[in-house]
Amino acid sequence: MTAAEQESPGRPATRVDLVTFGETMARLENPVVGPMRHARSLDLGIGGAESNTAIGLRRLGATAAWFGRVGDDEFGRLITTALAGEGVRIDHAVVDASAPTALLFKERRSGTLTRVQYYRTGSAGSRLDPADVPHALIRSARVLHVTGITAAISPTARAALDDAVETARDAGVPVSLDLNYRSALWSPDEAGEALRDLVKRADLVFATEAEARLVVAADDPAGLATGLAALGPRDVLVKRGAAGVVASCAGTLHVQPAHRVPVIDPVGAGDAFAAGYLAEFVRGRPVAERLATATAAGAYAVTVRGDWEGLPSRRDLELLKSTEDTVTR
Amino acid sequence: MTAAEQESPGRPATRVDLVTFGETMARLENPVVGPMRHARSLDLGIGGAESNTAIGLRRLGATAAWFGRVGDDEFGRLITTALAGEGVRIDHAVVDASAPTALLFKERRSGTLTRVQYYRTGSAGSRLDPADVPHALIRSARVLHVTGITAAISPTARAALDDAVETARDAGVPVSLDLNYRSALWSPDEAGEALRDLVKRADLVFATEAEARLVVAADDPAGLATGLAALGPRDVLVKRGAAGVVASCAGTLHVQPAHRVPVIDPVGAGDAFAAGYLAEFVRGRPVAERLATATAAGAYAVTVRGDWEGLPSRRDLELLKSTEDTVTR
Amino acid sequence: MTAAEQESPGRPATRVDLVTFGETMARLENPVVGPMRHARSLDLGIGGAESNTAIGLRRLGATAAWFGRVGDDEFGRLITTALAGEGVRIDHAVVDASAPTALLFKERRSGTLTRVQYYRTGSAGSRLDPADVPHALIRSARVLHVTGITAAISPTARAALDDAVETARDAGVPVSLDLNYRSALWSPDEAGEALRDLVKRADLVFATEAEARLVVAADDPAGLATGLAALGPRDVLVKRGAAGVVASCAGTLHVQPAHRVPVIDPVGAGDAFAAGYLAEFVRGRPVAERLATATAAGAYAVTVRGDWEGLPSRRDLELLKSTEDTVTR
Amino acid sequence: MTAAEQESPGRPATRVDLVTFGETMARLENPVVGPMRHARSLDLGIGGAESNTAIGLRRLGATAAWFGRVGDDEFGRLITTALAGEGVRIDHAVVDASAPTALLFKERRSGTLTRVQYYRTGSAGSRLDPADVPHALIRSARVLHVTGITAAISPTARAALDDAVETARDAGVPVSLDLNYRSALWSPDEAGEALRDLVKRADLVFATEAEARLVVAADDPAGLATGLAALGPRDVLVKRGAAGVVASCAGTLHVQPAHRVPVIDPVGAGDAFAAGYLAEFVRGRPVAERLATATAAGAYAVTVRGDWEGLPSRRDLELLKSTEDTVTR
Amino acid sequence: MTAAEQESPGRPATRVDLVTFGETMARLENPVVGPMRHARSLDLGIGGAESNTAIGLRRLGATAAWFGRVGDDEFGRLITTALAGEGVRIDHAVVDASAPTALLFKERRSGTLTRVQYYRTGSAGSRLDPADVPHALIRSARVLHVTGITAAISPTARAALDDAVETARDAGVPVSLDLNYRSALWSPDEAGEALRDLVKRADLVFATEAEARLVVAADDPAGLATGLAALGPRDVLVKRGAAGVVASCAGTLHVQPAHRVPVIDPVGAGDAFAAGYLAEFVRGRPVAERLATATAAGAYAVTVRGDWEGLPSRRDLELLKSTEDTVTR
Amino acid sequence: MTAAEQESPGRPATRVDLVTFGETMARLENPVVGPMRHARSLDLGIGGAESNTAIGLRRLGATAAWFGRVGDDEFGRLITTALAGEGVRIDHAVVDASAPTALLFKERRSGTLTRVQYYRTGSAGSRLDPADVPHALIRSARVLHVTGITAAISPTARAALDDAVETARDAGVPVSLDLNYRSALWSPDEAGEALRDLVKRADLVFATEAEARLVVAADDPAGLATGLAALGPRDVLVKRGAAGVVASCAGTLHVQPAHRVPVIDPVGAGDAFAAGYLAEFVRGRPVAERLATATAAGAYAVTVRGDWEGLPSRRDLELLKSTEDTVTR
Repeated sequence: MTAAEQESPGRPATRVDLVTFGETMARLENPVVGPMRHARSLDLGIGGAESNTAIGLRRLGATAAWFGRVGDDEFGRLITTALAGEGVRIDHAVVDASAPTALLFKERRSGTLTRVQYYRTGSAGSRLDPADVPHALIRSARVLHVTGITAAISPTARAALDDAVETARDAGVPVSLDLNYRSALWSPDEAGEALRDLVKRADLVFATEAEARLVVAADDPAGLATGLAALGPRDVLVKRGAAGVVASCAGTLHVQPAHRVPVIDPVGAGDAFAAGYLAEFVRGRPVAERLATATAAGAYAVTVRGDWEGLPSRRDLELLKSTEDTVTR
Repeated sequence: MTAAEQESPGRPATRVDLVTFGETMARLENPVVGPMRHARSLDLGIGGAESNTAIGLRRLGATAAWFGRVGDDEFGRLITTALAGEGVRIDHAVVDASAPTALLFKERRSGTLTRVQYYRTGSAGSRLDPADVPHALIRSARVLHVTGITAAISPTARAALDDAVETARDAGVPVSLDLNYRSALWSPDEAGEALRDLVKRADLVFATEAEARLVVAADDPAGLATGLAALGPRDVLVKRGAAGVVASCAGTLHVQPAHRVPVIDPVGAGDAFAAGYLAEFVRGRPVAERLATATAAGAYAVTVRGDWEGLPSRRDLELLKSTEDTVTR
Repeated sequence: MTAAEQESPGRPATRVDLVTFGETMARLENPVVGPMRHARSLDLGIGGAESNTAIGLRRLGATAAWFGRVGDDEFGRLITTALAGEGVRIDHAVVDASAPTALLFKERRSGTLTRVQYYRTGSAGSRLDPADVPHALIRSARVLHVTGITAAISPTARAALDDAVETARDAGVPVSLDLNYRSALWSPDEAGEALRDLVKRADLVFATEAEARLVVAADDPAGLATGLAALGPRDVLVKRGAAGVVASCAGTLHVQPAHRVPVIDPVGAGDAFAAGYLAEFVRGRPVAERLATATAAGAYAVTVRGDWEGLPSRRDLELLKSTEDTVTR
Repeated sequence: MTAAEQESPGRPATRVDLVTFGETMARLENPVVGPMRHARSLDLGIGGAESNTAIGLRRLGATAAWFGRVGDDEFGRLITTALAGEGVRIDHAVVDASAPTALLFKERRSGTLTRVQYYRTGSAGSRLDPADVPHALIRSARVLHVTGITAAISPTARAALDDAVETARDAGVPVSLDLNYRSALWSPDEAGEALRDLVKRADLVFATEAEARLVVAADDPAGLATGLAALGPRDVLVKRGAAGVVASCAGTLHVQPAHRVPVIDPVGAGDAFAAGYLAEFVRGRPVAERLATATAAGAYAVTVRGDWEGLPSRRDLELLKSTEDTVTR
Repeated sequence: MTAAEQESPGRPATRVDLVTFGETMARLENPVVGPMRHARSLDLGIGGAESNTAIGLRRLGATAAWFGRVGDDEFGRLITTALAGEGVRIDHAVVDASAPTALLFKERRSGTLTRVQYYRTGSAGSRLDPADVPHALIRSARVLHVTGITAAISPTARAALDDAVETARDAGVPVSLDLNYRSALWSPDEAGEALRDLVKRADLVFATEAEARLVVAADDPAGLATGLAALGPRDVLVKRGAAGVVASCAGTLHVQPAHRVPVIDPVGAGDAFAAGYLAEFVRGRPVAERLATATAAGAYAVTVRGDWEGLPSRRDLELLKSTEDTVTR
Repeated sequence: MTAAEQESPGRPATRVDLVTFGETMARLENPVVGPMRHARSLDLGIGGAESNTAIGLRRLGATAAWFGRVGDDEFGRLITTALAGEGVRIDHAVVDASAPTALLFKERRSGTLTRVQYYRTGSAGSRLDPADVPHALIRSARVLHVTGITAAISPTARAALDDAVETARDAGVPVSLDLNYRSALWSPDEAGEALRDLVKRADLVFATEAEARLVVAADDPAGLATGLAALGPRDVLVKRGAAGVVASCAGTLHVQPAHRVPVIDPVGAGDAFAAGYLAEFVRGRPVAERLATATAAGAYAVTVRGDWEGLPSRRDLELLKSTEDTVTR
């Protein structure tokens, strides 16, 4: 086995299973729970919904490419280094020397509450432009994965999003959409309209219950899933945290419970879920397997601090079934 | 500019300037100077003479590929992640599930003394085999860079070294050799014989004065450089630490002083020097420029803890000329 | 809004809602659970029951002043810096050059057990003297808050306590008393007598069940609350940890359950409870609101390491009602 | 009281309650839960089943000696320093200059799962030899404690194990055996045969249910205990984690529940259990007391990170009965 | 002595020696020298030229007030907490809920080079407005201290600067100006014009040689000092780092050498110098004493990491004269 | 070689080369240079002039015993654990349950200045009593080592000092005295008288120039050495830091230069010097060798943080002669 064949290689894949794009940020968070101003130091990493999902696919053996803009600064270099290190193709990522890389501060305020603050106004990532979209790459992918965040960060980014989605549709590449509503970026009304338009053009849709309600009205998760599916997508996944997931896939309802694990950091669970689902989707696996891997990936993500660091490899998925508390590798 | 065009991209280069190989290890060192047993924790990183040099070239804008074996463990994954993150191609690196990744402990015993201990007996890296050598890759390179360490770690590794060198020579690819004598691996006598044989087949040779004396006898650095050059290599670089370098290049002697910088960690200076020299060599730059970049890279490497973390980008080289102590980027 | 109007300003208030005093100590604790001798470093902060409560009031928008003695050393400066930083008025704090600042070691021995060791014999704080009592300040306050600890640390401190209490009573300023029994400082018998005398002169009394039993005999929390109230105080709060609180306020019994939160550090919960209660008391809010804020403040305090660092602002109190696990500020 | 009379003295005991031996390793683990390659530093300590148990006896007031081989390196010195510091006699420990000290990496992969990797092939500890066995010391002990690990690490170590056991039996010294099966060292079949042979020669046997099944077949813990006892040992302890222990002691079955404590690190619980049991055994205490101390010691061990650091003193055992969450010492 | 009378009190002074204002930022820097992207965590503090100087005066026993805008976020609270803790009056500081607090990243790139990156575009601090200027406070001060940075961050900030300077001049309060050129904020030409205008209205001027050349042309430091003084200021201080200072004070030239100290962090030396000079100026001390305290304060500042943390108290100034390397306090 | 035969064994020696006693303290210091109140955590260790010297002898292969009192707390256990771990015999150390272990705070105020604060009033160590003196142990030693500190900490400690010295003299055991003047404990006049009396009864005396002047008057180091020797001691060592040492040994003057090393922490250099000298003295080595080892040990001590952690083994002494900056062990 070459290093490139295991879960975190760096080898350039000739063909890419998943293409995604968006804004990835430097992430700074307090190492000890409490008000951030009492921290003497902040841990440094990276985070971004789309690149988290790309890493998730790589860990599970699929290939992935990410594009977007970063600043010509240490934080931009941190992002490209981390993604390349995880084996995500970044050959279409752009270094924009005229704007800084965006920042994401995570304040772990208590064991169960995280507060988030962005420094992303005018950032390099929000300057994403249709000219940055690599059409050939998208056309060759097994799936294009986008999120609602990109529609919210700037008009040029939304134009790039439209361009990418249309490119995929024209080429018959399935479009995966995670609604990912961020209240700091737009209002529920603005978001509702834009997301509804995106859902109509998507083949797979991921949403929390609250996000689903921005687009459709329904009393319960099953109603939300059905309502979204009625807009066009073949697969709709309504995520309910510890309560599991309700899915409408090719017209059939599925209910999948969540794993019971000690939650250390809930951020990134949604991206992990999408990664697990899509990792099986690109391999052509059936719905039951997609849901199983998606919930397992979500479970792994929340047991480790960091948005993506705890994402599982195929071997890690085996461990979740173990009853032992100590394993010799 | 795309991310791949700046100093630490992840984009797969279609053609590779430098190919190198050898054993890269997980590196553990005490964060505070003193006996290692008084440390409560050890800092974790990676190190390996050849991969350090490959990273050095990437930072300076050249492309590089590294191959070798790592274990199927977290340390192996750390190595492939770090190298891919720095944009070094690792598609020919091998994961050997039957042996662990080697370890390198660096004990910073005082401000001026470092003690090194290896756990590399029977390691994955020492199981490198001629079957691992990627002939096409080597044939397409602008230079093949090897070190004496590979000749010392195992018979199969030495066979792989011979195979790689012959492949390069057959294809007209220049061979660069850093003698890199390690007393823990073999005796001066064993080393002397093997290194002499390698020098004869090399086009560029890097050596400290002590290493040069393993191969040739001479009274002074100039004599050592001339003596080594007489064995065949076009360029011979005799490194003298703070005293600079004496070189014999295409029959002409050059003397280059070192930069005066505060030394924090001397480990890695030689690899940085080679990287600086080769980064200009592959661009076809004249000897004066090669020597200037080599000494600047060496100066950067010693001002930062870590074997390769402090290696400079082209922009960093500019800073060395600055008289300011604070720079706004 | 000026900085002074938000929850942690530094602006000198012209009038002070709460005046308190006592011994505040430098606090050192092991960052990782286990026997303290295995710690390689100890975290440094400050702690003192009275100053914790003063900070609690500031966070909730009230004004507060603290006085007491600290040594002319780095620990004394740490205390005055931290209190002034939190906006607690310290203009009557005294620097006593003839004695050191007291120390408090907190050994987190297991997830549920904390051991405490003091270095406070002969400390600057225990040299508090009636001459240090600022009569005008006390007379202008909305409430004077004292604890039983001050009665125990030295005869001069007890004399100062008596002086302050009598000054408040003469001026019609309500006296708040937290029994705060410390077994390292005096015996149950000594404490019982002294505390009984203080309860008789107080308007508000805070006590755990065990502390209440030092003063009155009763079978259950309600009996303890009623028994203490019979000695004179208008409001008596009997704290029962996770079991909530039983209060006798103006002759009426109230029962308030505690919030269910993950406990990280139980130290400081009582001081937070008193702060929450008094923050509403000085605003003239009704009993139900006082109890609600008191239990919410107690809940916040235990979710964060440190005696006071986790005390909530008004905005934080809102978060306790949130069902989200991630909030964008 | 002299320092030597309290729980962690350094005074050489004239007579030793427990003698044990085996391989003790330097232990490196990630401080924050997650994949080890994401750690920037690893915490350094020591660990070894037999020396953990020796420390456990010292903490509980008994005397103990450990022997085995360590390398002539910082890790060997760390081991001898730590054991001597805990008051374990190491006068028969051997420094073997021709091999390195073994390493143990503990990867805390999630809140409930630990992965272990060894670097112990060819280690100093595995070179233990019958010539290292101190016969006089063993003959003077109250109990000899061995584990199945020693039978697995090398043929010479197994020969030393046989020699020690026979020496004890000849001298009428009871032999205590903890099966301690390690899958990385041998197969279940190899282990089953060797362990069965050891059980027959032991007086006290400690085993998990899974380990017991390597030697005897039975449906339930009681059957396993009875089955092992039928092979010869007077006391057999079948450990069931949070489900407590089932014991067959002198022909009588005992069932002891476990304490309910928050588990931080399960590694070392078995060694602590053996230490608690043997600490009472060497004092001639009855079975009920042995089981009580054993389960209490096991409870303490899991509440603290580290294999032995959290082992309790006699005073700590008292704390387990406390209902307070803060104690002043 | 009360706490308010020593060097870091929190007591509100009835009259303020120095009033200053500007933008203070949260400061994040890598704890270990090297490229910032290799840091796993960044140390958190605050920094701002004007507030650094205010703290410097407080440490030396003078009183000081600072105003400016901070965001309604943890970084804003960190700034107000730190300044209030150091005894700087912040009652006119403004919390601006519509913009974030600015950030300052310090990358310690090598032992002698620091790179700085700002996130201050659109920050709360740059929204400073003439309406924020507290005229009464300025009129009551002994000196108003401003820097050229405020002229550069925004038009409203420059208007506030003009308003404050005119208010001081009208009231006969001396104006102190530190040129503090920041190349990231404006061009040399823009700065030259604006600073020249400010110099004309100032009574005391602090400048490096390079900064002085933005305003006047001269061959040497003495020429620069004389040239600036010719524009109007009574005292002009031209700072030359390790080469000391050349001053033109009331028409007389002074040359003061620098102290020889090991430099750990050069940032903040200029602010410390100004603080030392002004601390003596407000006490009416002669020029020689002002220069002596200024150079001593500058020396202290560079021996400690952080922009202001190492600023000396009066007692610390005594230590600089000590020949001992260990002092018992 | 057994572990007990190398430099840090734990084996109880049957005979002890050096016996010493005094007060050993828990040591807390700021990890980053600057005012201690800005530290977020303090590093924890132990320190004491006499026990430092005892450890120094152990590292150099001699045997040593220390006695004194520690509190029945974690700091006392830290001290006994650390000393026993270093192989120092502590069987006559006493745990005094009625007083706390003393504390020593080291504030690294700048690169060249350390401030020290004690919490030792009423400490366990100062309660040392003649009844604690182990007469048989002293009579069997090759040298008794005492310091002037013990004469200063309490009347009972001084009585114990007298008892120990007389016991040694009666038994013909040489008495070694390090003057070790501490200004926090007594005045120069008090100290001068007491130390003069001790010098008269000592065989070997260690003093800095300033300490020597407390006892005798002389113009230069040679005069001081001669003057002290005239009071009785055979060997007098006058230490001059980087200027080396001047000694009067058996009537002959010796001058020994110091090694040139980068100084990280000057504390402990004197104890290391005494250890080096005495390690050769107990082996009967000549003066030149004693001085060489003494200065080498002093050089090692200052290159590492901590009072004793950097003390050299015999092997380390060899390294001081090395010209390499990297050594493979």
